[in-house]
This record gives sequence, structure tokens and C-alpha cells, in this order.
Amino acid sequence: MTERIDLAAVMERLAGAEDILLLCHKNPDGDTLGSAGALYWALTALGKRAAIFCSDPVTERYDYMQLGLYDGSWEPKYVAAIDVAGIQLFGEGAAQYLKRVDLCIDHHPSNSGYADATLLEPEAAATAEIIYLLICRMEVEFTPVMADCLYTGVSTDTGCFKFANTTPRTHHIAAELMERGAHFVHLNELLFESKSQRRLAIEQTALSHLEYHFGGRCALMYVSRDEILQTGADSNDLEGITSIPRMIEGVVVGVTMRQLESGSYKVSVRTAGEIDACKICAALGGGGHMRAAGCEFFGNLENAKAAVLAEVEKQI
Amino acid sequence: MTERIDLAAVMERLAGAEDILLLCHKNPDGDTLGSAGALYWALTALGKRAAIFCSDPVTERYDYMQLGLYDGSWEPKYVAAIDVAGIQLFGEGAAQYLKRVDLCIDHHPSNSGYADATLLEPEAAATAEIIYLLICRMEVEFTPVMADCLYTGVSTDTGCFKFANTTPRTHHIAAELMERGAHFVHLNELLFESKSQRRLAIEQTALSHLEYHFGGRCALMYVSRDEILQTGADSNDLEGITSIPRMIEGVVVGVTMRQLESGSYKVSVRTAGEIDACKICAALGGGGHMRAAGCEFFGNLENAKAAVLAEVEKQI
Ligand SMILES: [Mn+2]
Ligand SMILES: [Mn+2]
Repeated sequence: MTERIDLAAVMERLAGAEDILLLCHKNPDGDTLGSAGALYWALTALGKRAAIFCSDPVTERYDYMQLGLYDGSWEPKYVAAIDVAGIQLFGEGAAQYLKRVDLCIDHHPSNSGYADATLLEPEAAATAEIIYLLICRMEVEFTPVMADCLYTGVSTDTGCFKFANTTPRTHHIAAELMERGAHFVHLNELLFESKSQRRLAIEQTALSHLEYHFGGRCALMYVSRDEILQTGADSNDLEGITSIPRMIEGVVVGVTMRQLESGSYKVSVRTAGEIDACKICAALGGGGHMRAAGCEFFGNLENAKAAVLAEVEKQI
Repeated sequence: MTERIDLAAVMERLAGAEDILLLCHKNPDGDTLGSAGALYWALTALGKRAAIFCSDPVTERYDYMQLGLYDGSWEPKYVAAIDVAGIQLFGEGAAQYLKRVDLCIDHHPSNSGYADATLLEPEAAATAEIIYLLICRMEVEFTPVMADCLYTGVSTDTGCFKFANTTPRTHHIAAELMERGAHFVHLNELLFESKSQRRLAIEQTALSHLEYHFGGRCALMYVSRDEILQTGADSNDLEGITSIPRMIEGVVVGVTMRQLESGSYKVSVRTAGEIDACKICAALGGGGHMRAAGCEFFGNLENAKAAVLAEVEKQI
């Protein structure tokens, strides 16, 4: 059972800690890296030895955060997990640091309470919001690098202030990060206006198989295993394209099908309005949420398509 | 010569005005409509007769603003232009209302001062920011419809808080509009996460002709006249796709070529970093800005491409 603590207690514990390792979750996103990054800079400014560890490599696009990654040259005495909801999210490479997690700072309502002490704010749109409030209370200069780290966390976790988790506080914090020197124009270009050649290629391929059904209310696209290999698309790229069919005007059910190594099809369903994506997928042995769900279909493309469209028709 | 007035003076003039016509600019965008819409609702709440006029039709996607459009059944006694930088931007259909423009509220630095009195705030990211401050001072209830109108203006003029015109105040106002009931999730889906079938089709067609040059530092795509006609793409759609090639990772010069009715090619150049788009286009008889420029090239596709790429090579 974890001890739930508040911001003041976190301040106190960090003030008393030395040789601090900050752990990020695997497949690191802008929030886990930006939050850990800003905290790393703040702790360093307090004269403490600190570093960041992530079991997966950090992509070059985040170089501007100047993350102090752990090089193994010293032994951590205090371990803090940042934006990590459960122990399984650290990734295998982190196992050696998990004997004891002293502190966890997170915003996921599903946080499992694996750490000795946890500061959990489920109403925060991003862990970066919590770290912002923390650093504001610390006796350190708030630098533009910290502001860039936290702007990254806040903007990526909210889809640039578009998602339902965005609150008025999110915008107020964004304003204050701009005032503290966040290079928001450059960051937004990098984070939201840029695409890899690979991602564009798989998008293009999937769209070449775009079909409209039920009078344009359903759009469906698919990519074969060969096409995935040919474009070099990774799982992030494939996840990224699933939102495209639903974005088309008039479409209320967007379906993306990608062939797996086994030959079967992974189906992603995205819906708008009153249509329940989970019902469509549950009927095919899958599950998910109202707006986003998925299932796997064993069989060839034509059979998989027919089965999915039959379920879509029942809901549309 | 226009009289420059402040917010308090605008309040006073509107308080004394009756039968107010609010004029939007042609090709109306989210800011001119949202700003005029919110002001329409505020004036109506004050018990005044008011309406909105725009020389171009308002697309259905803005229906949620419940804009009170002018039906010609009464004679305007007071005319106020909202987000209109110059007289030529009203469009031909507005000529009859321009004998006297009593008031202009705008944020364009280029505002020509055509109105009797002007409230100009060039540091406002959107006219909607100014209207927000105005309505806050008025003795009216701030309704969710007004908040939706103003959120629309602010978010569309800043590309959802991404463009360089965004200021800390923009974010603070967005926060307050959320608190006043703006349906920001729905609005963002509608404004930023939706694409017409037509737009998607022309994107798809253009990308099918995507070429990389100079080791991936330049990306070029084109659409023929036949393809434009086949997809039904309009000038907005064509303008919209010009940002795509530059978005690709590693690309510093993005070139989009579209064939005109005359058979010649209109070339749009978008650049990143230190590369001057205007220099590239100026060498071909065109012009524009550092990051975005254009030119027209008479000749067939191969000649046009070769000429543009030769200029790109000089700058890259
Ligand atoms: Mn997060
Ligand atoms: Mn504007």
C-alpha cells in the first residue's frame, strides 16, 4: 500500500534525498520525458546529483530537453518514478532499479500505488502540470530549458490543448511557461507539424485502400503485412494512422485494418457521436472504449472486412 | 483619418448605438465570424437590434455559433466592422453598407483606418481576444454560445495555440472561455480534426507524385489540372496541401506545384531554418515571405520542375 502524499511532502522528501534516479515509462512520450527532464534540471540546480533512466531509447527529436540520462557511474540512493502508472510500464531494462521506488509522481487515475509514496493528481492533464507546481515552489531559477520540457509534457498529453483532459489550469500553466521562456513556436512545429517519411508512406499506402461504406458514414482502410514491411512502418506509425478515417467529414465510424505477422488482421475502430466503438469490437471478441476500440480477426481480408462491416451496420 | 479609440470608448459608443450591423470580411474565417457572433449576442442581450452581414456565405460548420445574419428587414443606423483590415476585404456585396463605417475593431497591423473610429490591438492574436475583454466589461451574462464563438476565433487564428502570434494572454483567455462554458472538445474536433473527402482526395493525389531531392532535404509534389477537376478540389483545398511537403522530417524546402487552367504551373514554396523561400521564387518572377513564397511557371511540368529545383539547389 502506498502512502499518498501532497506537494509539500514531495518537496520535503526531495530536499532530503541525494543521488536521485528519475525513472520514465517505456515507449517514452513527451510527458514522462518532459516531466523528468524539468525535475532533473531543478534538482541539479539545488546542487543534487540526479539522472534520468528509461528502458527504451529516447528519440532525437527530444534532444532540446538536454536530458541528463543515467550513465551508471554512480549508485542511486533515491528512486522516483515520473508519469508511470504501473510497475509493468517501466520495461524490462529497469528491473534493477525497482527494488524500491521511493516516490511516484503521476496523473493516471489507474496508478497502481507501487511506490512507497505517491503524489497522484488525476485531474492534471499531464504529469508536467504537477511538476510545474512543484518547481515553482522550489528555490531554483525557472529556466527556459525547464519551460521547454514542461511545455512539451503539457502539449503532447493534451494533443495541443484539444483533448477532453485539458482544463483551464492547463492553459494558465501554458501561459506561464511561455512567460518563462518556452520556445513554443519551435516546439509546436517539431511536435505537431512534422512527420517521418516512413509515417507518410504508410499513411499514403493505407489511404490508397480507402473505401466508403453506408453512404459515406463509414470509412475503412487497410494495410497488408507486405506494405508494412515495405514502408518500414513501426507500431507508433501504425497506431498514428488509425485516427485518419474518422477525421473525414460525414464519417462516424472509421476503421483501420492492419495485417499482423500471423496473417490475421488487427482492427481499430474510431467513432463519433452516439456510436459505440466498443460494441462493434466486442461482438468480434475485442474491446475498448466508446470512441476507440479494437479487435483481431483471423481470416483473409475479405472475410475480415465483411465481418467488421456487418457489425458497423448494426450500430450505424 | 480614423480616430483611434480604446475599449472604454467602444463600450460607450455601442451603448449609445441602435440597429447595429456587424460586418465581417469576405471568405469569412473563424475569427471574423466568432468575434462578430459573440458581439451580436452581447448586443442582443443589452436589448439592442443587431445582425451580422458577410458578403460570402457562411459554411455550415459554423452553425453552432447561431449567428444572427442580417435579413434586410430593417435599416442599420450604426455599422461596425469586425476583424476587417481594409475596405477591399468586405467584398462586393457589402458596398451598400459602406457609406459610413462607424466603428472598426481589429487586430491586423495593416489596418488601413477606413472607419470613423478604430480600436486596433495589433498584439492581440485574434480580434476575439479584444471582443472577450469588451464583453467582460459589458453588463450582460456571458453565455456558453458567446464562449464558443470566441474560442473559435482565438483557436483558429492561432492554429490551435501553435502560431507565433499566440501570447500568454491568449492562453489565459482560452482558460476563461472554458470556464464560461466553451465546448472546446467538440469545437477542436470540428475545427482541427476534420477533413472533407475532396480535400483528402487531392492530398492523396498530390502525395502519389511526391519526390525527394537533394538527399531528402527537398520534397516536391504536384497535381495536374485533370486531377484537380477529378477530385473537385477548390482553392482552399489546394492552398491547404501546400504545407504538407515541408512537414516531412528532414525536409527544409517543400514545393507544391498545381496546374492552372492556362496549363502553366503555380508553384508554392515553404521553407524551414535559414532557407529563404522568397529568394527561390523571386528568381522565377514570384515573391512572398521568408518561409512561404510562390511563383507561376509557364511551360510543361518537366521544365517547371527543373527550373524550380535549380533555384532550390542554389539556396539549399
Ligand atoms: Mn502523462
Ligand atoms: Mn483575425
